[in-house]
Amino acid sequence: MNIEILSTGNELTTGALTDSNAAYISECLNQKYLTVNRHHTVGDNLAMISSVLSEIIQRADVLITTGGLGPTTDDLSAEAAALVINKSLVFNQSAYDAMKEFFERIKRPMNPSNKKQAYLPDGAVPIPNPVGTASGFKILIGTCHAYFLPGVPHEMKKMLKTYVLPEICQNFGDLNQKTGHQTIVCFGQGESELGDKIKDIPQMVEGVKVGTRSMFPELQIKLYATGKDVSSIELLLKQAEKICLERLGKYIISTNGESIQHVVGNLLRKQNATLAVAESCTGGLIAHKITEVPGSSDYFTCAAVTYANKIKIDLLNVSSETIEKYGAVSKETVIEMVTGIRKRTNATYCLATSGIAGPGGGTPEKPLGTLCMAVAYDSDIHFQKIVLPFGTREHKKELFAMAALDMLRRKILHLPLLFEE
Amino acid sequence: MNIEILSTGNELTTGALTDSNAAYISECLNQKYLTVNRHHTVGDNLAMISSVLSEIIQRADVLITTGGLGPTTDDLSAEAAALVINKSLVFNQSAYDAMKEFFERIKRPMNPSNKKQAYLPDGAVPIPNPVGTASGFKILIGTCHAYFLPGVPHEMKKMLKTYVLPEICQNFGDLNQKTGHQTIVCFGQGESELGDKIKDIPQMVEGVKVGTRSMFPELQIKLYATGKDVSSIELLLKQAEKICLERLGKYIISTNGESIQHVVGNLLRKQNATLAVAESCTGGLIAHKITEVPGSSDYFTCAAVTYANKIKIDLLNVSSETIEKYGAVSKETVIEMVTGIRKRTNATYCLATSGIAGPGGGTPEKPLGTLCMAVAYDSDIHFQKIVLPFGTREHKKELFAMAALDMLRRKILHLPLLFEE
Repeated sequence: MNIEILSTGNELTTGALTDSNAAYISECLNQKYLTVNRHHTVGDNLAMISSVLSEIIQRADVLITTGGLGPTTDDLSAEAAALVINKSLVFNQSAYDAMKEFFERIKRPMNPSNKKQAYLPDGAVPIPNPVGTASGFKILIGTCHAYFLPGVPHEMKKMLKTYVLPEICQNFGDLNQKTGHQTIVCFGQGESELGDKIKDIPQMVEGVKVGTRSMFPELQIKLYATGKDVSSIELLLKQAEKICLERLGKYIISTNGESIQHVVGNLLRKQNATLAVAESCTGGLIAHKITEVPGSSDYFTCAAVTYANKIKIDLLNVSSETIEKYGAVSKETVIEMVTGIRKRTNATYCLATSGIAGPGGGTPEKPLGTLCMAVAYDSDIHFQKIVLPFGTREHKKELFAMAALDMLRRKILHLPLLFEE
Repeated sequence: MNIEILSTGNELTTGALTDSNAAYISECLNQKYLTVNRHHTVGDNLAMISSVLSEIIQRADVLITTGGLGPTTDDLSAEAAALVINKSLVFNQSAYDAMKEFFERIKRPMNPSNKKQAYLPDGAVPIPNPVGTASGFKILIGTCHAYFLPGVPHEMKKMLKTYVLPEICQNFGDLNQKTGHQTIVCFGQGESELGDKIKDIPQMVEGVKVGTRSMFPELQIKLYATGKDVSSIELLLKQAEKICLERLGKYIISTNGESIQHVVGNLLRKQNATLAVAESCTGGLIAHKITEVPGSSDYFTCAAVTYANKIKIDLLNVSSETIEKYGAVSKETVIEMVTGIRKRTNATYCLATSGIAGPGGGTPEKPLGTLCMAVAYDSDIHFQKIVLPFGTREHKKELFAMAALDMLRRKILHLPLLFEE
């Protein structure tokens, strides 16, 4: 079973637009346990499109093409398809009627140039477009089921889901080999160390492939399983997951692809706990991450982004002597910050950060990338200092926020901390 | 001249990740008036990668490949390249030394599995990676200049700009025609309205091409100029910029590609002013954006991310009656928030937001996407309420933060506000 995707458009080959359609279609097919082998992208050029089409239909069982179905002269997909099958474009009444009906529905006059969109390759079956003017179409070329969809994402998605996917599943979804995948999110190990620890999983669990992916500052392990049915795939993934958990344990943030802010949010919700944050170097990024999660107002009460020292003193009651003596980036200051936010908010858990995100501000004793962080829970306060010397200011903020949220996660779960005090 | 791009990785063919690398590389080449004809994407499969490589090198003058240079067993690009040229992988001392030096620089131990990354196809020239472990490499296969870069975007970009692009331009660029470009950042107009307003610029200023690009929530206008020397290019860009300014005026955030947080930061610094923020629905994103700018501690004093109503009351002195009577998302509450943060901080400018980012929480009177925002300066307080009903929670937060920062920008510049009160 070989599925390929062709995206067309000068906006793609010039880089004016990133092709999100191919990824979307691939993900939809992958969720149905169907594997896409290859993506292609070419510009609005008749010779180029038809040559790529000719090439793909030799190999593929299914081809999904997006783009080039609009009313203008640089919309060439139907013409290219007709060229490849050596047929002409013919007026398709039902495609025309659907388009006319669409214009009536949105109360806009139909432009004469739209008529072009009702000309399909002879023998093509139109694919209705309920949310736009461009009719899609399907042709069977040899043994290749070739689907042509518009490039406008919301039109393509609608047509894919209502017409194309069900048909592909019906034709090809019943094969003996199905595939599934799972994402394990990790933090605190290098990609190569992580890769080393899981590389023998394919030998241990037959039918499972593994991969790693850096989604800075997360590292993800991807497990891909092939089996006869959904339950055997799930069993394989469970076995592989178990090995990952045994070997990577505390470095694993989630085994279902969830990011740290979702994991921490779920843990807090389960405990009926609340969270307040005092941020300096992370500059609001921890709060932003936490509030990315719908429903985070259930546990997140506030963040005090106390960038200026004066505000650390006024708002969090950090003593000016402490800042003067030890500096804003110090164990003493960050402990006073976490104490201050706890006093102000009475939250179950409190988290504080102070560090040097750069590009300036480093000293020999406190180099660029130094992060002091503290977690308060009950009467306990835990402190960690780490140095993350690489990357830009943006990278450092991301890494700092991740490290702080991971410290909180470990504290909630009573796990050992990642870095030494 | 035929340039093709190959992106590798199961995360791309499964749709887990959208391939932004191909678009980025294409745009960089396009800016140099070099045309990319085709993008290819395949998964981490040795036979597939080598077969596509064999196919491309028959046609292309330049091939740029991304991905598959990591330390793990599913990183197969070097092996595939070696297979295609019928050579073996050999240990490359300079690639190894560069990697070793990188680990020393970031003070991390080098893992034995990293050594794999120093094995390059026999005859390949390493391309240094100053920001990561994966060495790139280049091989000339027949007449095709094939470049292999890592898939991690910031590594790929660095290596593309410092090594690959200059070499391609030297080999294939038109030395008599130089090019320049300029990015104008806009906010507050739809892409098609914006496009209509600037589409005649190429007719008005010969030698200039224009494009628009949605970088949500910003809209960018790209001006591309071609000329014999830098000064004539600059003159062309100035003329085009003038037309944009005349037609788009207050919708223009910057004419040099700077984002709103940089523009606002520069305005505050010029006035020796300070800024404090009280955020509810934006959840720390405004603070995060402001503190993305190096040196923002010069003007940014603090943000109070008062998510819980109790904290709005305790920290910002919002009255509980106001919240009860008008709701947290109301003109009354957001004005008390901005008043409260001003009292606490004495900052020159204060900004406050309260709104409904969803997915739940909308009502007929206050629909999902409602944003109340206020700016305080001197004794004045300005209020705006807008409804931005589209997009996910993530989109809404981005749009809310942008709208609030743009309101602040307009207040600082004494421009009319974008939306009606």
